Amino acid sequence: MMMDVPLLVAPMLERAERLFPKKEIVSLTQSGTYRYTYAEMGRRTRQLASVLKQLGVQKGERVGTLAWNDHRHLEAYFAIPGMGAVLHTINIRLSPEHLAYVINHAKDRVLLIDVTVWPLVEKIRDQLKTVEYFVVMTDGALPETTVQPLYSYEKLLKNGDPEWKFPRELDENDPAGMCYTSATTGKPKGVVYTQRSIFLHSMSLGLADVLGLSESDTCLSVVPMFHVNAWGLPFAATWFGTKQVLPGPQMTPQNIAKLINSEQVTVTGGVPTIWIGMLKELEQNDYDLSSLRKLLFGGSAAPKSMIQAYEEKYGIPVVHAYGMTETSPVVSVCNLKSHQQSLSKEERLELKSKQGIPAPGVEIKVVGTDGEVAWNGQEMGELLVRGPWIAAGYFNDERSEKAFQDGWLHTGDVVTVDEEGAIKIVDRTKDLIKSGGEWISSVDLEDALMAHEAVYEAAVVAVPHKKWLERPIACIVLKDDFVGKVSDQDLLDFLKPQVAKWWLPDAIIFMKELPKNSVGKLLKRALREEMKARFASKESV
Amino acid sequence: MMMDVPLLVAPMLERAERLFPKKEIVSLTQSGTYRYTYAEMGRRTRQLASVLKQLGVQKGERVGTLAWNDHRHLEAYFAIPGMGAVLHTINIRLSPEHLAYVINHAKDRVLLIDVTVWPLVEKIRDQLKTVEYFVVMTDGALPETTVQPLYSYEKLLKNGDPEWKFPRELDENDPAGMCYTSATTGKPKGVVYTQRSIFLHSMSLGLADVLGLSESDTCLSVVPMFHVNAWGLPFAATWFGTKQVLPGPQMTPQNIAKLINSEQVTVTGGVPTIWIGMLKELEQNDYDLSSLRKLLFGGSAAPKSMIQAYEEKYGIPVVHAYGMTETSPVVSVCNLKSHQQSLSKEERLELKSKQGIPAPGVEIKVVGTDGEVAWNGQEMGELLVRGPWIAAGYFNDERSEKAFQDGWLHTGDVVTVDEEGAIKIVDRTKDLIKSGGEWISSVDLEDALMAHEAVYEAAVVAVPHKKWLERPIACIVLKDDFVGKVSDQDLLDFLKPQVAKWWLPDAIIFMKELPKNSVGKLLKRALREEMKARFASKESV
Repeated sequence: MMMDVPLLVAPMLERAERLFPKKEIVSLTQSGTYRYTYAEMGRRTRQLASVLKQLGVQKGERVGTLAWNDHRHLEAYFAIPGMGAVLHTINIRLSPEHLAYVINHAKDRVLLIDVTVWPLVEKIRDQLKTVEYFVVMTDGALPETTVQPLYSYEKLLKNGDPEWKFPRELDENDPAGMCYTSATTGKPKGVVYTQRSIFLHSMSLGLADVLGLSESDTCLSVVPMFHVNAWGLPFAATWFGTKQVLPGPQMTPQNIAKLINSEQVTVTGGVPTIWIGMLKELEQNDYDLSSLRKLLFGGSAAPKSMIQAYEEKYGIPVVHAYGMTETSPVVSVCNLKSHQQSLSKEERLELKSKQGIPAPGVEIKVVGTDGEVAWNGQEMGELLVRGPWIAAGYFNDERSEKAFQDGWLHTGDVVTVDEEGAIKIVDRTKDLIKSGGEWISSVDLEDALMAHEAVYEAAVVAVPHKKWLERPIACIVLKDDFVGKVSDQDLLDFLKPQVAKWWLPDAIIFMKELPKNSVGKLLKRALREEMKARFASKESV
Repeated sequence: MMMDVPLLVAPMLERAERLFPKKEIVSLTQSGTYRYTYAEMGRRTRQLASVLKQLGVQKGERVGTLAWNDHRHLEAYFAIPGMGAVLHTINIRLSPEHLAYVINHAKDRVLLIDVTVWPLVEKIRDQLKTVEYFVVMTDGALPETTVQPLYSYEKLLKNGDPEWKFPRELDENDPAGMCYTSATTGKPKGVVYTQRSIFLHSMSLGLADVLGLSESDTCLSVVPMFHVNAWGLPFAATWFGTKQVLPGPQMTPQNIAKLINSEQVTVTGGVPTIWIGMLKELEQNDYDLSSLRKLLFGGSAAPKSMIQAYEEKYGIPVVHAYGMTETSPVVSVCNLKSHQQSLSKEERLELKSKQGIPAPGVEIKVVGTDGEVAWNGQEMGELLVRGPWIAAGYFNDERSEKAFQDGWLHTGDVVTVDEEGAIKIVDRTKDLIKSGGEWISSVDLEDALMAHEAVYEAAVVAVPHKKWLERPIACIVLKDDFVGKVSDQDLLDFLKPQVAKWWLPDAIIFMKELPKNSVGKLLKRALREEMKARFASKESV
């Protein structure tokens, strides 16, 4: 029979140390650009692991990180699961209340805190019940504070053992990582990754038909490392010996474009909001981004017009993907099939605006009101997902029951699946607009609106309606140059030939910006509440 | 935590059925070329699985196959592990004695037998103790025989259920496959693959830095499906929806070149012997092989001159790999690292003649007489391997003890590893020539000899020597055009500037052909015995 070798995180780093010791990691920190190699990173990671051991961190205990994408965070990514503890990446854009909640709920014993994030922690220090050590990630002075016990990451590392051996007696089903995801209502919900799920998910990122991440790539993680492990990119890139670029705290479109240009980045990924911003930057300044072979869009559906702009105007291949915190996150990736490559430009663009087919290892099921729906690109249903890197429940949370049933994760996303197996996100179950017994997809309406040259962002939400129960309202942010020059009627006229008459929004509301959450995702719920209040006071539109 | 979804074989097929139902499989059988799709293959595979169930095959029981690379064998690849039984692929080139041994030792209850292979089975029928059903894979008439009970594969399938559901209650550590490997002495040794090891190994074949097998490829399995699951290619190709070409019983260089040409094959793999033969064919006839993106060499070290001929003369990218039956087989693959791409042609060729760096998931250790050796491309030692698709022992075999120690497989291969982690096979431990206390690599000598324009094949073995203990003898097969025109002294003169003086063979023996085993591998032991006998009668050379 086969060896009982567990699927663990530490050997992934060991591979990089042995096979790619000279490969570079570029890290932009508060104090400038830092470059080092996998050999050095490995030594520092072992130092960190041994220090955590000295501090008394036990197997299975949580160590929290509050940090941007930089080399110290990368060290924590391997040191913490490597020693058998749990890497709890904390979303630094949470409200103070939620920050305190997740740290207490996870029972973090140690916090590794980026110096720029320190003020956030200081503010909630009194609410933290389990933290014994505050470690500030800086090579400069510690912040002036009365908080105790406070440690310098760099000073601690000096006491660490650069030859420290990662334990091999771990079980692959041991917890290794943790990330909380915002809930529509109530407190964030914790997802616990295992050694095994991180190993398998990382492997999937190397598959030719997923991302094909390779030693020959240069990978820029734009998606924050506190958000679903930066989609697993830092784990996979280290394992495969890929050059990594970590952009630090200044994730502006300008800095990202500059980095892609200067470091010759080949693969990068982030939420659509980031890439909308970069499009604007590309219009204003010149960059050579020809090194890019894959620009990964994920986190929410990207408008077709944006995919088109990147591909046709700038020649940058866009790959649309679908996933969530509960799914590690890769569920599906939109690489066109070989027979689709010869389709017309329009047909290919249409396909690329979908979220693609399930990755090897992930199974899907789409359930409508009458059971599983047909894969015909028309019938809508909730997407259910299963696989070895899909969560089976939330951490100590009674909300697990609803989302995880019969061995499937109920994503809460409404999708269609076409004959080729490609998923298209139509809406969140709760964002669907139910007008007169029929469903209207807010995502499709937004997509159509985004195609108008004047529209920078669009969000469509439902408001209650006496006769139709719900009707759509479109909230629009215009591009700077078009403000005051485009009317609601112009946009409605633009939509008319594209959608069914009863899909036309009852109102177009121009706004300066749309409400977003901590990772740049649109807050539909907040917008819906706002619109509801606005239209409730009037006669229903 | 994460879902407890086992890593199984059946869902790999289910993915192909759902996502790539129209993708083609091309199968060359005794009765002509057969083309069908993954949808049809899936239905027939389910029929086969349900039929085996009807015959009473239980979970964990072995079903033997004696077949070439064709669509029926592919169906067996998924039906047998899919239903929870064990796919025992039997090497049809074994001696009758060994054939009977492996079938009895594995306790095969059912045999699926290619009609062309039937005579072999008939011959040993009386020795088979466990087989209850003989199923002949043919759409024609059954062979005339008194052997009972004899079934027609195609007739059986008609009773099968094309909608049969594969069980999901399997454990990923359940046995799923089995393959015997020839031993230097004694009976063949059985290796048992698990559901998990097949899943993980298949995944590795999709990694960009391994083979990068993709939906967009066309994969021709030249390595026999009775030999280490055709290196796992049929499993991975099905999972990824890759078009497959199965060359059937006529694996001649001419047929292979024709198939690559006509089916636009992008990836293929086989042992060096096959590719030596194809080189000859390419010299004589014109083919367009420009569709090939990877020609995989494995099973034994390929001579540098052959790699050079393929790459430089025909522009076909060669990838050298290392593995064995015990390793599923991928241990290492020689894709040059990005920084090596800019080396000179000679340097790149030198690197390509190595077997490459360990694949993600595989760990290696090289142990010489004084413990682990340095990775400097010089120090030799035995290669030890560990990983989730590496065997932990042989099936019911006391020879396991020697090969599997302290959690590592002792491969019996002597290697060097260079600073970049690339393995180079120097010899089998038992083929190394120990001359005056120093080691001489037979592989290096063969490589040097193969570079001579007159040499078709070369094999160097040790013969006993009074003073030096052992000395090398070179056995040479000349190319047809050079027979009688090249002397032993010519070859020695050719070697002199290339190797240390004491490495020079004591004799050059010209032969018509070299002894080979059932999968085309050189039989060094037989050759050594022959040379030993030959030189024992004389005064030691």
